[in-house]
Amino acid sequence: MTHQAQHDTMISGAVGADIIPPTVNPLLQRERDRATLTKDLVTQMTYMIDDGKDKTARRRHIESSLFSDPLFSERDRYIRTSAETFDIGVKRSIRLIDFKKVHNITFSETWDYVYRALTNDVTFGVHDLMFVTFIDNQGTEEQKARWLGKARNMQIMGTYAQTELGHGTYIPGLETTATYIPSTEDFVLNSPTLTSMKWWPGAMGKTSTHVILIAQLIIGGKNYGPHAFMVQLRSLKDHSVLPGRSVGAIGDKWNFGGVDNGYLSLENVRIPRKDMFMKYSQVAPDGTYSKKGNPKVMYTTMMVVRLKIAQECWQSLGRVLTTAIRYSAVRKQGPVDQGGPEVVILDYQTQQEKLFPGLATAYAFNAVGKRLQEVFNKVQADIEKEDFSSLPELHALTCGLKAFTTGTAVRFVDTARFACGGHGFLLSSGLPYSYSRLSAGCTYEGENTVMMLQVARYLLKSAYAAQNGGSLASSVAYLAEDTSGQTWPAQTETDVVNSDLLYKAYQHRAYRLVNQVGQRMAQLMGQGQSQGVAWNNSTVDLVRAAKAHMQFYTMATVFDVIKPLAVDPAIQSILQTLSCLYAIYMMDQSIGDFLEDGYMNAEQAQMVHGQYLALLNAVRPEAVPLVDAFDFSDLTVHSVLGCYDGNVYERLYEHALRDPKNKTEIHETYYKYLRPLLTEHQSKL
Amino acid sequence: MTHQAQHDTMISGAVGADIIPPTVNPLLQRERDRATLTKDLVTQMTYMIDDGKDKTARRRHIESSLFSDPLFSERDRYIRTSAETFDIGVKRSIRLIDFKKVHNITFSETWDYVYRALTNDVTFGVHDLMFVTFIDNQGTEEQKARWLGKARNMQIMGTYAQTELGHGTYIPGLETTATYIPSTEDFVLNSPTLTSMKWWPGAMGKTSTHVILIAQLIIGGKNYGPHAFMVQLRSLKDHSVLPGRSVGAIGDKWNFGGVDNGYLSLENVRIPRKDMFMKYSQVAPDGTYSKKGNPKVMYTTMMVVRLKIAQECWQSLGRVLTTAIRYSAVRKQGPVDQGGPEVVILDYQTQQEKLFPGLATAYAFNAVGKRLQEVFNKVQADIEKEDFSSLPELHALTCGLKAFTTGTAVRFVDTARFACGGHGFLLSSGLPYSYSRLSAGCTYEGENTVMMLQVARYLLKSAYAAQNGGSLASSVAYLAEDTSGQTWPAQTETDVVNSDLLYKAYQHRAYRLVNQVGQRMAQLMGQGQSQGVAWNNSTVDLVRAAKAHMQFYTMATVFDVIKPLAVDPAIQSILQTLSCLYAIYMMDQSIGDFLEDGYMNAEQAQMVHGQYLALLNAVRPEAVPLVDAFDFSDLTVHSVLGCYDGNVYERLYEHALRDPKNKTEIHETYYKYLRPLLTEHQSKL
Repeated sequence: MTHQAQHDTMISGAVGADIIPPTVNPLLQRERDRATLTKDLVTQMTYMIDDGKDKTARRRHIESSLFSDPLFSERDRYIRTSAETFDIGVKRSIRLIDFKKVHNITFSETWDYVYRALTNDVTFGVHDLMFVTFIDNQGTEEQKARWLGKARNMQIMGTYAQTELGHGTYIPGLETTATYIPSTEDFVLNSPTLTSMKWWPGAMGKTSTHVILIAQLIIGGKNYGPHAFMVQLRSLKDHSVLPGRSVGAIGDKWNFGGVDNGYLSLENVRIPRKDMFMKYSQVAPDGTYSKKGNPKVMYTTMMVVRLKIAQECWQSLGRVLTTAIRYSAVRKQGPVDQGGPEVVILDYQTQQEKLFPGLATAYAFNAVGKRLQEVFNKVQADIEKEDFSSLPELHALTCGLKAFTTGTAVRFVDTARFACGGHGFLLSSGLPYSYSRLSAGCTYEGENTVMMLQVARYLLKSAYAAQNGGSLASSVAYLAEDTSGQTWPAQTETDVVNSDLLYKAYQHRAYRLVNQVGQRMAQLMGQGQSQGVAWNNSTVDLVRAAKAHMQFYTMATVFDVIKPLAVDPAIQSILQTLSCLYAIYMMDQSIGDFLEDGYMNAEQAQMVHGQYLALLNAVRPEAVPLVDAFDFSDLTVHSVLGCYDGNVYERLYEHALRDPKNKTEIHETYYKYLRPLLTEHQSKL
Repeated sequence: MTHQAQHDTMISGAVGADIIPPTVNPLLQRERDRATLTKDLVTQMTYMIDDGKDKTARRRHIESSLFSDPLFSERDRYIRTSAETFDIGVKRSIRLIDFKKVHNITFSETWDYVYRALTNDVTFGVHDLMFVTFIDNQGTEEQKARWLGKARNMQIMGTYAQTELGHGTYIPGLETTATYIPSTEDFVLNSPTLTSMKWWPGAMGKTSTHVILIAQLIIGGKNYGPHAFMVQLRSLKDHSVLPGRSVGAIGDKWNFGGVDNGYLSLENVRIPRKDMFMKYSQVAPDGTYSKKGNPKVMYTTMMVVRLKIAQECWQSLGRVLTTAIRYSAVRKQGPVDQGGPEVVILDYQTQQEKLFPGLATAYAFNAVGKRLQEVFNKVQADIEKEDFSSLPELHALTCGLKAFTTGTAVRFVDTARFACGGHGFLLSSGLPYSYSRLSAGCTYEGENTVMMLQVARYLLKSAYAAQNGGSLASSVAYLAEDTSGQTWPAQTETDVVNSDLLYKAYQHRAYRLVNQVGQRMAQLMGQGQSQGVAWNNSTVDLVRAAKAHMQFYTMATVFDVIKPLAVDPAIQSILQTLSCLYAIYMMDQSIGDFLEDGYMNAEQAQMVHGQYLALLNAVRPEAVPLVDAFDFSDLTVHSVLGCYDGNVYERLYEHALRDPKNKTEIHETYYKYLRPLLTEHQSKL
């Protein structure tokens, strides 16, 4: 079939599967044929990534069921208008209600399988993940009886409204008020200013019927701080907005087009006393305020969300690398030797540098996510036994890993997009979508710099405790061991990729940076600065110390997780390579941290750099099977460059033909703007 | 007016200027009142940035004329559909034809003033900048007589088609053929494969009537390499596609929605011999091929484009920093001291770190752009005197600066977007638009890594020449001076911000990295690797050396440009601060490069870091006037967060109300998807 004929066929409406060959691109097939990681080993790696063969089977079953529905398997994501994107988001969310019932899908499976498959492009995510969870965790038995069933069945649709137009991370600054009126036993809700308007909650704008509202609780003129209230926004009969509420959508975002993030202002809205969440804080009919339990338990909902963000981060990265590595294995761009044959760009060292550290990081974050789950489960069990001692560490870990994983992955995703050149700028590549999507994770659920400063605060407290003989949680136990003045014992190229020696180096650097910034703060306070000012003047270094700590924690965890795995030696070997690359890459990037105090010398630094380059080389032959092992469906990857068959040019062309501008040979702008001009000029000739 | 009333007014269609106060936000006014840079000094800085008071006046005149037309002053950019965006792009391009005639706008003014004002959001940019220029530079007198007038008057609309679906930077790999047929004296054009389809040219899909086609010239079975041909695509009578051409749009991109980037395949298209561009290469009627002049002159069109990309880079960065810094001066997020008043986030050290190095860089790139223009003008003058000796240096400089400025600015733009938290994710913030726009500049007109490797090649050649007593161009003259073994003479905090000592440090590091990678390549070749393989195995280090060179070149240029400026001492002082920050920031980020070989010691590294933090502090009080001095119109900044009046919350709200989803109180998705569900459930109750 000639291109002209193909083109004519496409224009005439017969959307052309005939353009895309049924076979795998020979260049991509060659990669799979030559690798040590055979198809069977790739399958074993998938089981490992999924945490077991049964889980892989369950995930695949859910995915194939989902994708058997055309609503979930369509490929128009990058062609839709904003209005269509929102429409399909709502439609999908509603369709998922029955789907989850039919397949008995749990809370975890919603995140891990359904949202993974759909890359989370549904309207009622906040309903599922926060509204329902919050009622469950923070509602009294009476409240749960009233709300939980309805919420689970989506007889009420809700969201969580904390952030205000002028207020984000700093919760005490929230301005929305809930004033208790003992005489009528109700609360009066108000947004007294423009900045107090609730802003951002997902699905609040046009769809939710209810909202969990965070407002300053005022009783008898006294402010008891932020508390949570159930507030109905829209009539359950006709969806009209109830009196006193002003609610709407906040405009399009860079992504999440399926979600109607909203604004809400309240003017003298009255709700009954029993609609305040009362499990941990109570207001009696006469206005008496009381509390019970450990108030920090309130944070566990947020911890779960941060845990999940950190856990799903490797997926975003993995999807993008699936695209970029498959594309790089079929894209040619000139020869290595002048006059020689063109090679695929994956053979270029600079391309390997752009993609392989990210690949190693995706594997690392998968391992770290599993470990974090174990930690979380242990703390949950402790809490049930009324032991709250591990909460501060878990808080620091979830804050830190949320910030570190999203912040790290977003850079690799961007680099991978650039590595796909011009084609990576086409929406059909899926890479712009992945970037904007993941980048939101750097600000939502706690802005990353604020999160890293939470980690730093925990580190300084721990370092202080260590100096004063206090006990330390396991993730910061190293702060008790003074490693200053030491030098790195690595002597050979083998030494610099030895996991124990890498561990020592990261430990030394984290210890040094944490203590150095602690001393600097003490010095500034000695010069008369208040603690707050001294803290602020140290925040650049505090973030640096927190990052060093997270790099240490994650590299140590990765080696720890892979060591005892009972896997094929070939898999063990490549996991070792990837883990070394993860550690060495970060070291090479921050080599000044290791050189500055003389811990490392110039020769060692050169060896680190040399081993970094050698590891890129070692990953090269296994790169394609390593992304195959992630086992993302083509529909999940959703990229013309990233499909399993590697037929990138055919898919680029097929997608281009679906550009709505191509519906007619002569575009309407010709008649509107060009023809008058061309005709006028021609007549003058 | 209550929010409810405002909301009701907006919904009813009265778009609410009444929401936005007529006064400047007091927090932003405070910044301007307290700064050393008074309003008068800010104006003087604007003159300096624009390169003279007259130019500022001319720019402002063109801007205000442009914005007096509602077509150019509307504020719906972030609300439009893709189809509407394209429509307005074409409409604007056509409107600009008369506008430019009326105002006598030159080629340079188009770039510097019109595109600056509109942030280049027009369809026929490639027509203006490449199609017309190419005819002018590469056409014979006879060809210019036939085409140039028509092209300038847009009686023909054209683009430049080089890149193919499967081929980018590597020109010899292009597959499109132009085969000469002596018997009929014409060329037969063919795209023999899918990958040979032309892909990407701006405005090729639906609007252009003509294209400058780059194709392999085949005569008598011999390939003479890529040459340029004028090819008509569409009828001038009715815009229908001419036979043998298959042309269309390639689908939506992350930005440039106003441009119909296109694909084109050709099947036995015949064009007359005289339509090959013949100024430098000729095909005689009998098929005899000949060349004249210096073929490298062909590259000057591309050099101009790269020069312009590098020159406009500070604008993209400046617009974004105008937004982020103004927003940070009114946004509050908690107190510095517990219990104290909330401060604006610009007071946070971490926020300063995110914004001020970028601010210093915007000023630096403005200065570098001016210097590059001088170099370019000089080379142009040389060429007219048939002296081509400076072409290689200019090629390296334009490649290097295009890659270095876009690559550096894009990171700062992204960081600035993150610095605006959640609101920076709203399209109305303008920040996503700026990011995706600028990021395209990292791949078009030469992918940045490829560009940096061009620089590296030039550096290695120069280093080799230096070792063999050859003469060196001024930008690489330092390679003749062996600085190995030296140490940094800086002793005090004042020393580390001394421009001469900073110069020495950058010189030393560039010298070392260039020579180190040269030695490494020689070593690999000594081990038996071919030159191509050794090159490929050194590319990570080659890019690193090229970057070190560009950092050296730009920091040296910046100090050189600001030194002789006849400006107010207060301006001189802040320019000095910004230039130091530019140099110190990059040094602090790559401190390992300076420590590794013992050039710098630990104490110096600590002083560098300390001075970096001190410079952030020094910029703080002047930050708002420093972005005011860029003098971007609110319509150019196009951000609810970035307007001169700082009324960010009012503008966020006003823009939200224009979300099309807010047109009705009850969204249509309720009737389609939610009502059936809610009704079904309610009836079950």
